[in-house]
Amino acid sequence: MIDHLPYGVFRTPGREPRCAARFGDHLIDLYAAESAGAVEAGGTLRARSLNDLMSAGPDVWSSVRRQLLNRPPLDHLVPLSEVELLLPFEVADYVDFYSSEHHAGNVGQIFRPGQPPLLPNWKQLPIGYHGRAGTVVVSGTPVVRPGGLLGAGVVGPSQRLDIEAEIGFVVGIDSTLGRPVPIEEFHRAVFGVVVVNDWSARDIQAFEYQPLGPFLGKSFATSVSAWVTPLEALASAWTPAPPQDPPVVPHLNDDPHHGLDLRLTVTWNGVEVSHPPFASMYWTPAQQLAHMTSNGATLRTGDLFASGTVSGPQRGEVGSFLELTWGGTEPVELGAESRTFLLDGDTVVISATAPGADGGTIRLGEVSGTVLPAVI
Amino acid sequence: MIDHLPYGVFRTPGREPRCAARFGDHLIDLYAAESAGAVEAGGTLRARSLNDLMSAGPDVWSSVRRQLLNRPPLDHLVPLSEVELLLPFEVADYVDFYSSEHHAGNVGQIFRPGQPPLLPNWKQLPIGYHGRAGTVVVSGTPVVRPGGLLGAGVVGPSQRLDIEAEIGFVVGIDSTLGRPVPIEEFHRAVFGVVVVNDWSARDIQAFEYQPLGPFLGKSFATSVSAWVTPLEALASAWTPAPPQDPPVVPHLNDDPHHGLDLRLTVTWNGVEVSHPPFASMYWTPAQQLAHMTSNGATLRTGDLFASGTVSGPQRGEVGSFLELTWGGTEPVELGAESRTFLLDGDTVVISATAPGADGGTIRLGEVSGTVLPAVI
Repeated sequence: MIDHLPYGVFRTPGREPRCAARFGDHLIDLYAAESAGAVEAGGTLRARSLNDLMSAGPDVWSSVRRQLLNRPPLDHLVPLSEVELLLPFEVADYVDFYSSEHHAGNVGQIFRPGQPPLLPNWKQLPIGYHGRAGTVVVSGTPVVRPGGLLGAGVVGPSQRLDIEAEIGFVVGIDSTLGRPVPIEEFHRAVFGVVVVNDWSARDIQAFEYQPLGPFLGKSFATSVSAWVTPLEALASAWTPAPPQDPPVVPHLNDDPHHGLDLRLTVTWNGVEVSHPPFASMYWTPAQQLAHMTSNGATLRTGDLFASGTVSGPQRGEVGSFLELTWGGTEPVELGAESRTFLLDGDTVVISATAPGADGGTIRLGEVSGTVLPAVI
Repeated sequence: MIDHLPYGVFRTPGREPRCAARFGDHLIDLYAAESAGAVEAGGTLRARSLNDLMSAGPDVWSSVRRQLLNRPPLDHLVPLSEVELLLPFEVADYVDFYSSEHHAGNVGQIFRPGQPPLLPNWKQLPIGYHGRAGTVVVSGTPVVRPGGLLGAGVVGPSQRLDIEAEIGFVVGIDSTLGRPVPIEEFHRAVFGVVVVNDWSARDIQAFEYQPLGPFLGKSFATSVSAWVTPLEALASAWTPAPPQDPPVVPHLNDDPHHGLDLRLTVTWNGVEVSHPPFASMYWTPAQQLAHMTSNGATLRTGDLFASGTVSGPQRGEVGSFLELTWGGTEPVELGAESRTFLLDGDTVVISATAPGADGGTIRLGEVSGTVLPAVI
């Protein structure tokens, strides 16, 4: 656990939010630790979110991490059972990619049967879109079933509420408008990693999305883990990404072409239903970052870009229930129940592990959510 | 001018940004005015952006406006020539709609000749998508021509750089996650109006946009006017919107079904090329707001939602050069030049007027931008 040291933000009754690092069943109160001189971070830990630390840049990130690893300030431990965990950073822009070939291929087969599963641009660039930053919520936040137009003149609660199991990357520092961020800058630009559930109302999405893409079908909630794993903690998790054919254009050429060997688990009402392998993603996070800024768009502290649904080649490796139930036509067994999409009261937990140092395993912060009935 | 009183944020050399109201060729330094007791706004005017005032809600907006109209604090005037105007508010989420029937129909004919110009969902709901909030810039900011993938394996500067003349609506106060904001709340939720140029690289957009919509083709820059016209200043500008057929679903039913009689002017290198009529928009701003939150998505202080390109039924009323030149096939004359899309060095200015009180006319803040050469 000590090699992991993910960051978060907590609150205890009657107090302002404080930055923390997780330490087993406890957290280290980093506000208290920096105030007491037990760690030096230029004051960035005495803030109500991780944004100050994130904007301080990679040298400070390394320095703080080294201090915490070398001299954990254990005088400032608080039991996790006594705190409320909050959204750990203020989200600037939220981008969602679509970078699993298996997921894109499955969705293509389900929605466009008989046609090529991938569109012609899919292997040329990482397809992505902007989501709603203001509805990114922390793990544990209830998710109200969205209502909306399910077809011409038909309004009602979504009948096809789904999950998307993803990994999200949190940007630390700003870049300059009009200047693309080269692919080599990935390790200096990205502060850390969260587990993401990009909740999706497939019926709302299907009716609205032509020609401008998903909007209300995804903007009601995107859940992220309460803990941000620093990119440095994943040093042992890099692994070759799948070969790319055709070759990518120069500004998307990453060398090494590496992804992260993260293994996700999707648990639905306590039943493990899928184990999506992040290492199978076609487009890597470095390629996504380079693509996103290739037009001169800026990065800002708190930008979140998510991988897109993580799906492996097997049915037990898919990151959405759309795929798991093949468009709702092949129910899955949850204990005594046979199920397709989410019902009110359902709880989904997505967790992830990664190779740690010396053959160990890191458990990333999980993301959970329970569905509440629609308001309309 | 005194009946308009738009708000902005300015800086003079060596000083922090301050809130202001425009007063002819001067501005009223609202930080100084509130500090001197000449206006009372609960301290919200002593901030570096309009967000504090915006988040204070409609009663404070009315109170401040009334004070400024009744007793303009003219001891605190600063000539506009001595200041730099800044982005007037911190943008939370940026949504762009597609609500002009003429624009959507023109685009449909240009991109899908021989097919129905509107897709089946277009008259059922206001089509929209999320844009990049972090690249919303203030009028006058240079726009670097974006580069990107223009086709399979083809990288280069955009050859089809375009504008979109729009009106943007700025949200004042937060709403509650999971609770749709009813259409009647429009006037309490929206603080004011800006003029918007949603710059668009049509070639990048055309290659990337299937199936998830526009991304890099629009995320490099969205320019807004430096002045935010308070919604209250537009009380005389409401006018019946075009009839809607088929009838809309109940949560999109606005009564009265009113839009704003804003008249836009697009000036390209000094030549007036178009006069888009905002009153022709099919979907009204109140309908857009209700749609955007109908799935329970929250509003936040600083959310910006833009109308989509404003185009009237005539060629001289379109809000994009894609339409003005019919996909680049029918050049327009700019003085001695014959032109289609934007060249480096081009300057576009979009302005707007509205009916004011007693038969007068309000001039909204204009939005201008000059194209710089691509970096790649």
